[in-house]
Amino acid sequence: MRPFDIIKKKRNGEILTPEEIDFFIRGIIKGEIPDYQVTALLMAIYFNGMTDDETYHLTTSMINSGKVLDLSDIPGIKVDKHSTGGVGDKLTLTVAPLVASTGIPLPMIAGRGLGHTGGTIDKLESIPGFRTDLSISEFIENIRKINLSIIGQTSEIVPPDGILYALRDVTATVESIPLIVSSIMSKKLAEGIDGLILDVKTGSGAFFKEFERSMELADSLVKIGKKMGKKVVAIITDMNQPSGYAVGNTLEVIEAIEVLKGVGPDDIKELTLNIGAWMLKIGGVAREIEDAIKILKKNLKNYKGLEKFRELIKSQGGNPDIIENYNLFPKAKIIKEVNSTLSGYIQKIDTEKIGIAACILGAGRLKVDSPIDPTAGLIIRKKIGDKVEKDEPLITIHSNKKEIVPEAEQLIVSAYFINMDRMEKPPLVYKVLN
Amino acid sequence: MRPFDIIKKKRNGEILTPEEIDFFIRGIIKGEIPDYQVTALLMAIYFNGMTDDETYHLTTSMINSGKVLDLSDIPGIKVDKHSTGGVGDKLTLTVAPLVASTGIPLPMIAGRGLGHTGGTIDKLESIPGFRTDLSISEFIENIRKINLSIIGQTSEIVPPDGILYALRDVTATVESIPLIVSSIMSKKLAEGIDGLILDVKTGSGAFFKEFERSMELADSLVKIGKKMGKKVVAIITDMNQPSGYAVGNTLEVIEAIEVLKGVGPDDIKELTLNIGAWMLKIGGVAREIEDAIKILKKNLKNYKGLEKFRELIKSQGGNPDIIENYNLFPKAKIIKEVNSTLSGYIQKIDTEKIGIAACILGAGRLKVDSPIDPTAGLIIRKKIGDKVEKDEPLITIHSNKKEIVPEAEQLIVSAYFINMDRMEKPPLVYKVLN
Repeated sequence: MRPFDIIKKKRNGEILTPEEIDFFIRGIIKGEIPDYQVTALLMAIYFNGMTDDETYHLTTSMINSGKVLDLSDIPGIKVDKHSTGGVGDKLTLTVAPLVASTGIPLPMIAGRGLGHTGGTIDKLESIPGFRTDLSISEFIENIRKINLSIIGQTSEIVPPDGILYALRDVTATVESIPLIVSSIMSKKLAEGIDGLILDVKTGSGAFFKEFERSMELADSLVKIGKKMGKKVVAIITDMNQPSGYAVGNTLEVIEAIEVLKGVGPDDIKELTLNIGAWMLKIGGVAREIEDAIKILKKNLKNYKGLEKFRELIKSQGGNPDIIENYNLFPKAKIIKEVNSTLSGYIQKIDTEKIGIAACILGAGRLKVDSPIDPTAGLIIRKKIGDKVEKDEPLITIHSNKKEIVPEAEQLIVSAYFINMDRMEKPPLVYKVLN
Repeated sequence: MRPFDIIKKKRNGEILTPEEIDFFIRGIIKGEIPDYQVTALLMAIYFNGMTDDETYHLTTSMINSGKVLDLSDIPGIKVDKHSTGGVGDKLTLTVAPLVASTGIPLPMIAGRGLGHTGGTIDKLESIPGFRTDLSISEFIENIRKINLSIIGQTSEIVPPDGILYALRDVTATVESIPLIVSSIMSKKLAEGIDGLILDVKTGSGAFFKEFERSMELADSLVKIGKKMGKKVVAIITDMNQPSGYAVGNTLEVIEAIEVLKGVGPDDIKELTLNIGAWMLKIGGVAREIEDAIKILKKNLKNYKGLEKFRELIKSQGGNPDIIENYNLFPKAKIIKEVNSTLSGYIQKIDTEKIGIAACILGAGRLKVDSPIDPTAGLIIRKKIGDKVEKDEPLITIHSNKKEIVPEAEQLIVSAYFINMDRMEKPPLVYKVLN
C-alpha cells in the first residue's frame, strides 16, 4: 500500500477501504507518511467527501490509534455533551453539574477555545486553582465519586487528532464534515461513554453559518455515533447571537453560576433544561423529556446542580468560595461601554465579529499557544429584537489591553444591524435529531 | 499575506492575484512555505483549476524566480520543441539536427524519462561520451557555433519547478493542466527562445489518453505562450502506439540516425518533416509549410541533418563514429522475441503497458534517481493494422535483467488486442493549433 495511491483514489472520488484508512492513520502516528501527503489527502477529502462508511472507519481507526477508556466498572449509563462551538456558550458549565446531580456519570474531555469561539477548559481554568490536567486515573476516580470530571484533551487519547487538526488549521481543510465528525466522535467515543448529546450550533457565530450545513453535520454525527452502538442525539441550536450575556472566561463562569442559582439569562436556562433533559433521557433517568425537565427544574430549585458544581471545583483543586464571592475572581482594568450610533431595533448580530472582538481583547487565542486573559471579554447589553437608543450601550468591554479597545469597539459597532422595524427573537432550538 | 488565505481562496474556487501567486512561488524557493501547505494548494488547484490569467502569472512567477537566458546577441529567431512525452518518441533527435541544419538556432533544455515515457537526455547520454551537463556558457557558445545544443535541466533555471514536481509526483497532483502548462512553459521560456513547437501526444501511451484533455492542454500551452509574446504552435499527434519501432535509449538513437540517413520508419520520417516544417515557419526560414517540407527533404537527402547531428555529438564530447558504426554502442545480453498467442490483425496497443515493459527491462526509471540501462528496450515488430500469425514475434526484447523478462513478456502480450477484423492505421497528426 502506498500513500500516493490512497490520495489518488480519493482525488478520483473513489471510496477508501477500511484498510487504506487505517494505513493512513497508522502512518501519520508513526511519522511514516509525510505531512505533505497528509494535507494533499485532506484537501482531496475536502473536495470529494467521504461516505458514511468511510467516516465510520476513519473514526474507528482514530479511536483505536490511542487509549480507549474503560468505564464499565462505574455503574450507570455514562453520558457526555459536545458543542460545535459558539460565542458565550457556557452550557457545559450549567448542564454538566445539573445532570450529574441527578445521578448520571459524566466523563467529559473538553476542548480549548480557538478562533472566535470559546472553550470549556479555558473557562474552568479561570476559576482560581482549578486543574484541568488530571491524570486519567484521577479523572476516573472523580467520576466514580461525584459523577463528574472535566479535563482537557490528552495526547494519549486519539493521538493523530492533534496532528490532523494542526495540519487542517493551516491548509483550509477544517470545514470538511467527515473530518469534523471523525475528530469529534473519535475523541468522545474514546472516553468510554454510552451516550452523547451534540449541541450543533447554527448561525452567524457558529462554525457552519447555514442551517443546511449544520443539519448535514448533525446528521453525520448522529449516524456515526449510532453505527458505533451509542445513544446519540443532536440538537441544532441558534448561534445568531451570543448565548446569554457574558462572553469571556471569568464572565461566563459567573453567568453559569447565576444560572445554577436560579437566576441568569433566560436563554441559557432554557437551553440548559433542553439539553440536560435529553441527557437524562438517554441516561435512563427519565423516560419522557417533560419528566426530565421537571427533575432538572427541581435540582435547580434545591441547588443540587449548584452543589455539584461546588463539588467539581473542589475535586479539581479550585477555590469553591468563588460561588459566593465573585470578587475572588481577578477583574479587568478597563471596563468600558460601547454605545449605539443609531436608534432602533436590533435586527441582526454578526456573532463571529463579537467573538473576534472578545478574542482580541484577550478572551481567546488567535494561535494555538497564545496565552489567555481570563478576565477579558464582553457583556452583551442588547440582543436581537431589543430596542436601543442612540448613545445607549450595546456591549460592555472588559479588557487589559488599552491599545486593542478601539479595534474591538469598531468590530462591535459593525456587528450590530439596527433599524426601525420591530424584530422577533430567533428561536433557541431548531431541530432535534435522534 | 498568509499561505492559509491563498489556499482557502483557491479552495473556494476564487481567482488568485499575481501578487498572491508570486508570494507563494517566492515562499517555496525561500523555504518559507512548508511543503504541507504547498501540497494543499496543489490539490486545490487540481480541483478548481486556474484561469488563463492565473496560469500566465504562475508561469511568469516561475520564470522570474531563477535565471533567464539572454540569447539576444545570437542572430535569428531562436526556436525550441517540446513533447508532452510518449513511448518511442525520438523526434527531438531527428527534428533538432535537421532544423538546425537550415540555419535556425535551437537552444534546447530537455528532460529525462520518468514513468513509462522516455526522455531526450537519457537517449543522448546513451551515446558514448555525450555530455548533457554543459555549463550555460558552453550551451550558449555551442548554439552560436553550430545552431544547436541540448542539455539537461539545471536548478538555476526555474528553481521551484523541481520542488513542485517532486511534491506533485507523490500527491497525485501531476495531472493538472495549469500546473503542467506552467511547468513546461516556464522552463522553455526561460531558455530565451522566440518560438516553440509543442508536440502534444494523445492516446494510450500519452500523458492524457483522451483527445479532449490533450486538446485542452494544447490550447492552454498555446494561449500562455502567445500571452508571453512568443510564436507558439501545438501539434496534437498520435500516441496510440509507439513512435517508430525502437523503444529504449540506444535503440532509439540508432533509429533516429537511420531516419537522418533517409531510411528508418515512415511515421518518424513524416512527423519529423511535419514538426520540423512548423519550426521553419516560425523560425522565418519558410513562409509556407509546403516550402518548409521541401527544404527539410533536401537537407535529409544531402545529409545536412545527419552532419548536424555529428556536429552536435562532437560539440558535446560524444563519439561521432557511432553514426557509421552502431557496434560502438554496448548491446544488451538478452535479445528475445515475444510471440503472439493469436492470429489476426492488431486492433489496439496499450502503449502505456509497452512503455512500462521497456521501463522495467531497464530502459526507464520508476524513481527519479534510479539508474538507466542504455542498452535495454524493445523493438516493435507489429503495429496497429498489421497482420500477425500465431507464434510470430510482436516485439523483440533487449535486456540485461533476466529475472524481469517474464513480467515484461506478460505485459507486452496483454498490451496487444488482436482479432480477425481488418484495422486501419491511426492518423499521425490530429490537429495543429497556431
